[in-house]
Amino acid sequence: MSILSRLSFNQMTADPWSLEQVVTNCSRAGIPYIAAWRHKLDGDPTKAAASMRREGLKVSSLCRGGWFSGPTPEDRRQRIADNRRAIEEAAILGAPVLVMVCGPANGQTLEDARATVLDGLAEVLPDAEKAGITLGIEPLHPMYAAERSVVVTLKQATDMAEHLGSPNAGVVVDVFHVWWDPEIYPQIKRAGPRIVGFHVSDWPVPLPGILMGRGMMGDGVIEIRKLREAVDATGYTGPIEVEIFNDELWKNADESLPGLIQQRFLKHV
Amino acid sequence: MSILSRLSFNQMTADPWSLEQVVTNCSRAGIPYIAAWRHKLDGDPTKAAASMRREGLKVSSLCRGGWFSGPTPEDRRQRIADNRRAIEEAAILGAPVLVMVCGPANGQTLEDARATVLDGLAEVLPDAEKAGITLGIEPLHPMYAAERSVVVTLKQATDMAEHLGSPNAGVVVDVFHVWWDPEIYPQIKRAGPRIVGFHVSDWPVPLPGILMGRGMMGDGVIEIRKLREAVDATGYTGPIEVEIFNDELWKNADESLPGLIQQRFLKHV
Repeated sequence: MSILSRLSFNQMTADPWSLEQVVTNCSRAGIPYIAAWRHKLDGDPTKAAASMRREGLKVSSLCRGGWFSGPTPEDRRQRIADNRRAIEEAAILGAPVLVMVCGPANGQTLEDARATVLDGLAEVLPDAEKAGITLGIEPLHPMYAAERSVVVTLKQATDMAEHLGSPNAGVVVDVFHVWWDPEIYPQIKRAGPRIVGFHVSDWPVPLPGILMGRGMMGDGVIEIRKLREAVDATGYTGPIEVEIFNDELWKNADESLPGLIQQRFLKHV
Repeated sequence: MSILSRLSFNQMTADPWSLEQVVTNCSRAGIPYIAAWRHKLDGDPTKAAASMRREGLKVSSLCRGGWFSGPTPEDRRQRIADNRRAIEEAAILGAPVLVMVCGPANGQTLEDARATVLDGLAEVLPDAEKAGITLGIEPLHPMYAAERSVVVTLKQATDMAEHLGSPNAGVVVDVFHVWWDPEIYPQIKRAGPRIVGFHVSDWPVPLPGILMGRGMMGDGVIEIRKLREAVDATGYTGPIEVEIFNDELWKNADESLPGLIQQRFLKHV
């Protein structure tokens, strides 16, 4: 079976496209999965789910839950409530995984923020279990530690998942976020069955920007295939999401994009 | 004794200044140390050393050696030769430490590049021992892994220093590079007497840029004092370098800069 049968098109790879355009273009190209973002479902996950199902597309994951820390207890309660809504939306979409971007310190110390994240995950985990959704804790690149995620290494994410001790708590490996880590191969092996998602893109040199710097697979220095094979060696056979935040790519996104992604995916993933 | 007696002014904090301006301004402000850069010695380390000595200034370190990996054996031989020159220059300056920025993969795989770095360090270590210079392996922030350093965590740097097994192989802790690391406090403790340098700056939010993004202490989210106290707790009593790459700071660098640094140093370091 071709690896293309595992390809998932993350909605953010073509940010200017409507949900309908993503569905149509993926369906035409024979891309079997879509990775959805909550703010890109036109406010109606039920309708979005129906639209994808109609074209035979599966949802690999929903992005994102998390963002747990906040300066006040009230802030943090609101985050918990929002995570519960995210779990419900994942269930409606039929997304097996809710990707957790755990959030920055946001006024707390780093240590307190990390404790808040773990508490938050523990608090919403029963909801995920009931809904049959797995929380996929995604370590982000350390350059996002101040603004997006105090969870920055696969070791740390796996420690958290182990601490939670539920089949509904897993980790997501994104090559852009983890490729630099001297511990990445032993940590992938250790994470093993806890890996519930794998994301690809590339790291161009020089990096065009902090947030919008990702490149198409093959346009950077990440050893994507080596990482994919390490993840597969743990027994992971699930979808592989292509998630690229890149202004140039967005500006030029047309119907040829899914074909280009498939080509690069075959060659580099 | 005031912590100001440990303050070292890194030449790159005021890039537009000549060596003479750095010497004069530090001397006037009572800053006891300068951290020197090889390309900022006006091509004459002997004269630079005399100029600093005349004003009673000490050199905390020389930046930089390293940059070991290259696509061909000839490239790598040239890097070794350059490191030997850097060790000689450090000795001329009376700098006890040569800061090692180990270099990017530069055409090699990450694994090969890391092995090349360790080989390179081992090759020049006898020269450092003879010259009485300590090689300070500095882990850089993982956002520089593709372009500046395949050494990205304190654990990795300390592993290397331990492997080299010489009092002339140590590590440098720069808060900008390591603050995000979930393992940083146990790793500082472990590195212990191998710590031969400590650098401070801050991480503003949002970060103004990848290379030029550093901020003045107090203008960002790094828990500088906590890190400094952890480093001091290992027994480190050496100089603390202020190293800030920041376009705005450079543009506005005038005689008031040393005073501002002393003020922020007292408050935040």
